[in-house]
Amino acid sequence: MGDLITEAVSGTLYYLDKSIFDSIIESNIDGLQRSELFAHMARLNALYMIANAGSGHIGSSFSSMDIVSYLYLEGMKKDDVYFSSKGHDAPGLYAVLTALNVLPFEKIHRLRRLDGLPGHPDVNVPGMVSNTGSLGMGISKAKGMVFANLQKGYDSHIHVMTGDGELQEGQIWESLISATNHNVTQMTVVVDHNKIQSDYSVERTSSLGDLQAKFRSFGWYVQTIDGHNMEEISGAFDNAKKMQDMPSVIIADTIKGKGVSFMEGRSVDSDVERFQFHSGAPNVEDYTRAAQELISTINLGFEKLGLTIPQYEIVKRPVKPSSSQQTVKLFPSYTKALLKQAERNSKIVALDADLVLDMGLEPFRDAYPSRFIECGIAEMDMVSQAGGMALNGLLPVVHSFSCFLSTRPNEQIYNNATENTKIVYVGGLSGVLPAGPGHSHQSVREISALGSIPNMVMVEPAHPDEVEPLLDWCLNVHDGPSFLRLISIPFETDYERTSVLKPVIGQGEIVRKGTDLTIITAGLLGVSLALKAATELHNHDLDAKIISLPFLNVIDGNWLKEQIGGSRLVVTIDNHYRRFGQGDAIAVALTEVNGLNDCDFLRIGLNETPPSGSNDEVLQHVGLDPDSIVRQILKRF
Amino acid sequence: MGDLITEAVSGTLYYLDKSIFDSIIESNIDGLQRSELFAHMARLNALYMIANAGSGHIGSSFSSMDIVSYLYLEGMKKDDVYFSSKGHDAPGLYAVLTALNVLPFEKIHRLRRLDGLPGHPDVNVPGMVSNTGSLGMGISKAKGMVFANLQKGYDSHIHVMTGDGELQEGQIWESLISATNHNVTQMTVVVDHNKIQSDYSVERTSSLGDLQAKFRSFGWYVQTIDGHNMEEISGAFDNAKKMQDMPSVIIADTIKGKGVSFMEGRSVDSDVERFQFHSGAPNVEDYTRAAQELISTINLGFEKLGLTIPQYEIVKRPVKPSSSQQTVKLFPSYTKALLKQAERNSKIVALDADLVLDMGLEPFRDAYPSRFIECGIAEMDMVSQAGGMALNGLLPVVHSFSCFLSTRPNEQIYNNATENTKIVYVGGLSGVLPAGPGHSHQSVREISALGSIPNMVMVEPAHPDEVEPLLDWCLNVHDGPSFLRLISIPFETDYERTSVLKPVIGQGEIVRKGTDLTIITAGLLGVSLALKAATELHNHDLDAKIISLPFLNVIDGNWLKEQIGGSRLVVTIDNHYRRFGQGDAIAVALTEVNGLNDCDFLRIGLNETPPSGSNDEVLQHVGLDPDSIVRQILKRF
Repeated sequence: MGDLITEAVSGTLYYLDKSIFDSIIESNIDGLQRSELFAHMARLNALYMIANAGSGHIGSSFSSMDIVSYLYLEGMKKDDVYFSSKGHDAPGLYAVLTALNVLPFEKIHRLRRLDGLPGHPDVNVPGMVSNTGSLGMGISKAKGMVFANLQKGYDSHIHVMTGDGELQEGQIWESLISATNHNVTQMTVVVDHNKIQSDYSVERTSSLGDLQAKFRSFGWYVQTIDGHNMEEISGAFDNAKKMQDMPSVIIADTIKGKGVSFMEGRSVDSDVERFQFHSGAPNVEDYTRAAQELISTINLGFEKLGLTIPQYEIVKRPVKPSSSQQTVKLFPSYTKALLKQAERNSKIVALDADLVLDMGLEPFRDAYPSRFIECGIAEMDMVSQAGGMALNGLLPVVHSFSCFLSTRPNEQIYNNATENTKIVYVGGLSGVLPAGPGHSHQSVREISALGSIPNMVMVEPAHPDEVEPLLDWCLNVHDGPSFLRLISIPFETDYERTSVLKPVIGQGEIVRKGTDLTIITAGLLGVSLALKAATELHNHDLDAKIISLPFLNVIDGNWLKEQIGGSRLVVTIDNHYRRFGQGDAIAVALTEVNGLNDCDFLRIGLNETPPSGSNDEVLQHVGLDPDSIVRQILKRF
Repeated sequence: MGDLITEAVSGTLYYLDKSIFDSIIESNIDGLQRSELFAHMARLNALYMIANAGSGHIGSSFSSMDIVSYLYLEGMKKDDVYFSSKGHDAPGLYAVLTALNVLPFEKIHRLRRLDGLPGHPDVNVPGMVSNTGSLGMGISKAKGMVFANLQKGYDSHIHVMTGDGELQEGQIWESLISATNHNVTQMTVVVDHNKIQSDYSVERTSSLGDLQAKFRSFGWYVQTIDGHNMEEISGAFDNAKKMQDMPSVIIADTIKGKGVSFMEGRSVDSDVERFQFHSGAPNVEDYTRAAQELISTINLGFEKLGLTIPQYEIVKRPVKPSSSQQTVKLFPSYTKALLKQAERNSKIVALDADLVLDMGLEPFRDAYPSRFIECGIAEMDMVSQAGGMALNGLLPVVHSFSCFLSTRPNEQIYNNATENTKIVYVGGLSGVLPAGPGHSHQSVREISALGSIPNMVMVEPAHPDEVEPLLDWCLNVHDGPSFLRLISIPFETDYERTSVLKPVIGQGEIVRKGTDLTIITAGLLGVSLALKAATELHNHDLDAKIISLPFLNVIDGNWLKEQIGGSRLVVTIDNHYRRFGQGDAIAVALTEVNGLNDCDFLRIGLNETPPSGSNDEVLQHVGLDPDSIVRQILKRF
């Protein structure tokens, strides 16, 4: 196999067919040895899935793999249940479930594809018992499942895995209390204690201190084991199930990226090194080295157990279709804009919840270490801290992904707003894209979730050059809280700016002239789609005016009424649920000034929970592609 | 004084004037003895404020009073700061601040009145440093304040008090972690450990177990003291400030209702007894006995210290204005409806977050103890538990006040919704009334906060008889999550139902016929206001049709268009922020079917954070009284 890999310098992916898994399951080898070998095999398939999908979480799929393999092969009775609270380790679980025929095996080729295997768990997929991916909910959910089982007299043990970074979420500790009081023993919690979270070590990000003492003080039975030692894993689950006096947690000492030497997390010992394999697909070289190592390990395992060395399936690594259009990114502009503002105003501080890299905050952190606060995965705490800072004269800029930032600390953001302070919330990963991670990460309801807070103004740039003026408006013009909604992925757009955006609250800019209809939208995705649709509509002799309106929840109806004069149709495009998105705010603002009396109105946006899939697949599925938009518009003419 | 009180059997209230407080502050007595006497005096004034307001939290105002008095008289340096995280104990703090001239003394007559002293802390009131009342945020906020102080080189120690029931909130534990990692020692947390929460003991509701061990395991320096012993209080704060190695918490053993023997909480020892003095004003008899006891204690204190017995100010207890109209209540109907449904369907379970009494759940709990889950003040955990129950075949009905239920577990409700399960969320204390508690409790943004969740349907009854059909619709007709929005207070209404409501999604009922304009609204408050406004409009020769539309976020535009045909004006009335309330949903639904082309549109609702005050004051202030509504409508004709 070594030769084969060396030859195929690029573009070859490897996986094991289900028949190979069948063969070791049917063999007479020792159960724990089988589980260990199975785990190595499943790692290869998980790696394949991630490389094939171009995205996914290697680190925790690998660190949890021995435990998951043990549970499915040895540890669980027929009606027992396992799920992962963090859910990032889904590819690892899928590798196990496909090998065991819980999931159709062919699905391994469909990670993060439409009608395939979502980036995070979804109950529509066989074998998945709960939607996770939003952190901290798993133990609560497991308790609910146990309660229901007891009501029904149903004998099923629930196994729920949490991350360790995940333990920074308050809900975890909230959920421990009643488990003790109700003595929930039909559930075992296992912590995949791999000691590394998104960017850095747990110790550096927000140390959990003495984890055993913490669980014990909450009245839990605590076992600490080597999470890669099958004897210890097996013994711990046996003990946990015997314990009837208190709920059980197993703290499993694991290694992030376990099984591939150069992927194994070592940043625990370093204050600087960033772990490289938390999420995202490895490059060709890394993939090849990793697959080679896993294959060697698997072969060695087969040999040791006296089994025939297996055959590996080989497929071409999919090539990303290159595009004629150039993509643009918002975050580099955001990083620059924040640094520029911070230089001018020493009151600006930046808070982050374990997404320093994704939110483009490394340069700020390095330039202003004393003004950067890493809060860990603790959004409520972060937002209320920002509240206290703002009360005492600072100007906090609060960062996380929009899906989390708009919802987990929802009451905290409102509470801060009632104090009339100025805080800027910056949400990344906004909108339906990237579609791979699925609904836990697709943020398509923040306009609704936060938009009614008095004096809260939400803005979204349609172009990298709009990031700075909008951030400037939030920090220096608007007197109140604001939310800067940013798309994280590079995206193609025909939109070119020729002048500097001068934000006026509730107003936007004419991006394209036209007389038949007016498309009003916001953001990189919205304006890009509108421009593409307009080009196509031109072929149908329809001339669309496009208004880029960066204000999402506050609309100047009179200004807008003037702009749309003469249009037969007003179309809004929302990278958000239609209900209580920007389109609704536009409809209401225009209605209030009788601005729609003489024309039709069409709202385009999401009506249903978006699926996981490739970006193009999902945009088409939800009707946010140029063709679907054009079709809907043509129906009105 | 004893005689005086016995004579004035009813209707007399007592307080101490500021000059009496001045006299003991200027006297030469020992500082700790002064603090103790001051606390007794402040209790009398807090009791006066609550009796005068007709509402307020006696229990925790009294349990925390010795600590608060010590801090303001002895424990705090000039620039030090104190605030209460729970904020329910505001009357106690106001009594201290008015006595010390931080607040104008006359304000003691204005508790829970407009431009007076809000039911929960608000930074617009002198001496109040943070808006609290939403639980669990205090330590986070204090950390933010400390961070800002350190940035500015400002020497100020932050004292933050939490409740003990409040410690059930996950944010508390989330907030402890980074305090340890950043070694935040410029802050002292004190737990008012009075062992009783809203309805029952903490032990019974959701036991905190070994609280000392918990804090210690999070790396905190823990002291446990008698919270009514000035020597211990003083010693503990001194120690806390000396401790530079870790953050400090003082667990103060206190007695809820301390200072009035029959109000002192004893239910710790009982599994059944409910504490009577958590919130709400005492009746005349209880007030009189309590005041008598406090006055005796104060007099004795003055005597012991060789001071002249003080004079007490006497005012008449305000008489609640009686109304010609009868008030109706929704909750008795809800209780009955839930019991009826539970009898028919054994899958129904009810979850509660320490509001069993307010949410009308006692009869359910007593009838179906094994189907009732008291979660404590742990809304996130409650909602995710419900998610697990629903996944395993139960039909959970989840209860809390709307202000908390729609925001604290916002992401958890969304997560559940993505699992396509059916869960009914029931929110009490919905809308702007009661206005006394202030913005932390006035729930006026839940339609926005939850309304965009796919398949989520939110409904609100306008009459007690509508509660059952709407609950039935949520449980048995709608296939998905729903939110039942209930007003908690008794409210006057002219609305009489003659038939059984048959809910049809997005549609409502004509409550009053009329041809000039159509008022569309929901709920007890909305329909009552609309009817009153219509009567007045009739005097102006305007005939208003009224549509009661119980569906808040899902509107059948075609049905509505038909109903409003011919009206010159459509008016919506929202007991909610205007932005992303029912009025917006109506505007959008009508716009989509060109339903507003021939008529004006007027949205009435809240534009700003509502203030605390009496119900009538606040309705008038926010324009939700019949006169304001009529005025706005007449402007359009």
